Amino acid sequence: MPTQHGARGRARREEIVRAAIEVIAERGYRGASLAAVAEKVGLTQQGLLHYFPSKEDLLIGVLRFREQTDSGGRDTVAEPMTMADTEAVVEANANRIAIVRTFSALLGESVTEDHPAAEYFRDRYRLVRERLAATLRLEWGDRLPSGLTPEEAAPLVIAIMDGLQYQWLHEPETFDMPAAFRSFLRLLDPKAAS
Amino acid sequence: MPTQHGARGRARREEIVRAAIEVIAERGYRGASLAAVAEKVGLTQQGLLHYFPSKEDLLIGVLRFREQTDSGGRDTVAEPMTMADTEAVVEANANRIAIVRTFSALLGESVTEDHPAAEYFRDRYRLVRERLAATLRLEWGDRLPSGLTPEEAAPLVIAIMDGLQYQWLHEPETFDMPAAFRSFLRLLDPKAAS
Repeated sequence: MPTQHGARGRARREEIVRAAIEVIAERGYRGASLAAVAEKVGLTQQGLLHYFPSKEDLLIGVLRFREQTDSGGRDTVAEPMTMADTEAVVEANANRIAIVRTFSALLGESVTEDHPAAEYFRDRYRLVRERLAATLRLEWGDRLPSGLTPEEAAPLVIAIMDGLQYQWLHEPETFDMPAAFRSFLRLLDPKAAS
Repeated sequence: MPTQHGARGRARREEIVRAAIEVIAERGYRGASLAAVAEKVGLTQQGLLHYFPSKEDLLIGVLRFREQTDSGGRDTVAEPMTMADTEAVVEANANRIAIVRTFSALLGESVTEDHPAAEYFRDRYRLVRERLAATLRLEWGDRLPSGLTPEEAAPLVIAIMDGLQYQWLHEPETFDMPAAFRSFLRLLDPKAAS
């Protein structure tokens, strides 16, 4: 697998994905054209299709890329997570506005009809809720300090992360997203923060 | 103002806004065409422009309509709000998926470049954060039970409402959005719920 050709191919694919992230951040997925992505990396549209056979394949490439770069290169879907990790993800996100913008634009689009990312987001939410519930249980057992169960708290952690990104993207200079997330962690465990 | 003509005009405008909500829920704002909206209400595109001179005017009409219908017809931007009101808004939203889908699609699109709703969302976030901080202060004074200030908690309330909508829209049959929001209210005040 890691032949010279394979490594070059992977580097090229990543270059294309990074270009797609920029184009989607500007125009959304529906508004993005393969031609615009191809132009950014100096390929013809035909040349781009060699790496990603369709626009939807490229979309999946973008969504996977985000997962893999969460928390500094760790694949957060494969590895167990701690609450400190979620804080680290938010801190990292505050330093990569292009990918957050792209993800937030795609999340919004994904609720429109027959969107190719709809299944991805549904499955991802299910998976991340499960993993976060396991994380919360490791941290606090069957009841959080507030009395919530891990299963009740898990969707709230995701909602806060998704929701704060929109407020931040609309005021990146003045809205302190990591500080807001830390306030949420204090809600989860008031004692830890006092 | 409330002449026969004015009342008819308002009814017609509302009909157009409702059609626009459907079209945006399907294709997003950038993907929506005035022609599709006009067709839904049996107008020519020229006829529609008589009511909304541009696509952006129609977008503003959609966003205002949502505000006015929040919490059963009350204008929540003009009137003071209680925490019970926020719960009522979430309950109402769970029964109007089309408008929530449209709003969530627009919020996502609004972070892309030069989007005509960007300013609306930025201003709305500022306003709603202020209003929620006032609501939280009325309820709990300068410190919530968790130790957070009203100003620290306000953006979290908004983030939870926005974020839960995406999880719900991806699984409307199985994800209980009002229950999840009530869990969040228990985080804000663990004593009230035990």
